[in-house]
Amino acid sequence: MIDELPAGLTARHMAPDDHPRVLEVLDAWWGGLKGEAGSMERALLLPRLYFQHFTTTSYLIERDGGEIAAFLVAFLSQTEPEVAYVHFAGVDPALRGQGLGRALYRAFFALARSRGRRHVHCVTSPQNTASRDFHTRLGFTASAVRADYDGPGLDRVAFSIDLVADDAGARAS
Amino acid sequence: MIDELPAGLTARHMAPDDHPRVLEVLDAWWGGLKGEAGSMERALLLPRLYFQHFTTTSYLIERDGGEIAAFLVAFLSQTEPEVAYVHFAGVDPALRGQGLGRALYRAFFALARSRGRRHVHCVTSPQNTASRDFHTRLGFTASAVRADYDGPGLDRVAFSIDLVADDAGARAS
Repeated sequence: MIDELPAGLTARHMAPDDHPRVLEVLDAWWGGLKGEAGSMERALLLPRLYFQHFTTTSYLIERDGGEIAAFLVAFLSQTEPEVAYVHFAGVDPALRGQGLGRALYRAFFALARSRGRRHVHCVTSPQNTASRDFHTRLGFTASAVRADYDGPGLDRVAFSIDLVADDAGARAS
Repeated sequence: MIDELPAGLTARHMAPDDHPRVLEVLDAWWGGLKGEAGSMERALLLPRLYFQHFTTTSYLIERDGGEIAAFLVAFLSQTEPEVAYVHFAGVDPALRGQGLGRALYRAFFALARSRGRRHVHCVTSPQNTASRDFHTRLGFTASAVRADYDGPGLDRVAFSIDLVADDAGARAS
């Protein structure tokens, strides 16, 4: 399902029972970014519905013992037939720098391509510089900060990648 | 698109520009249910992505002047091919009792049926007795209160309706 994972890690699609387990790691992994409001913001951005109705486009990477190592929650746009969307993704800070985030995104890119999707979109908080750097390194183009993008006080940077151009770039390199 | 609306009201599918307009009415329409936390909870349950990627299964009813009268945000499950999901719906309190909520759900039921969906699911807060009564009247079956269903402190009642059985009941009545 996901190529070239470090030893001791396996990937699978999400299931409903993963919902509370993923919520449990959010605060630790995000390091309390934006305080209590940030904590509630992250939980409310991941209601159970994503773990029920978008499981086949979402991934979980676990350690051999079952501990969550990384996840990606994503879906195919039902409005735009060429667009797929990454809603939320995270990697255990203890495992960063090993390519897990990149592997998750690459797996979703391949799945999106196989379903006829050319563009992948996502957003992040302007404060989340690690996320902004990560998406830029992956080849996403970033927007300027868009104030109140997701609601009052919920500013976002929007990212987009063209999978056809990205694929051409990969072949040429 | 929606049959038998009262005079002066028209329905259409959602568009991205509707996102801030819908967020603006939430507090007034929900009457401050659950206080400030409830206000943030409602805004975070409606990030812009629903108004970008699930527009063709979501509806807005407006007055002739363009003021929002009611809305329904819904999608087709990408995991379960027979399931559709209503994520969020609201009716201007000044217009309640005129069948707008029922009309929105009926429109979505018809669309879901046309896309091969047999079951429609949704959830609501246990405190929202008006919503619980509404869904029961529409023919939904309610679960017991499920603690922490959507995350810590986010209890929910889950609703489900079988569109085939519901249709049979409608024909028999």
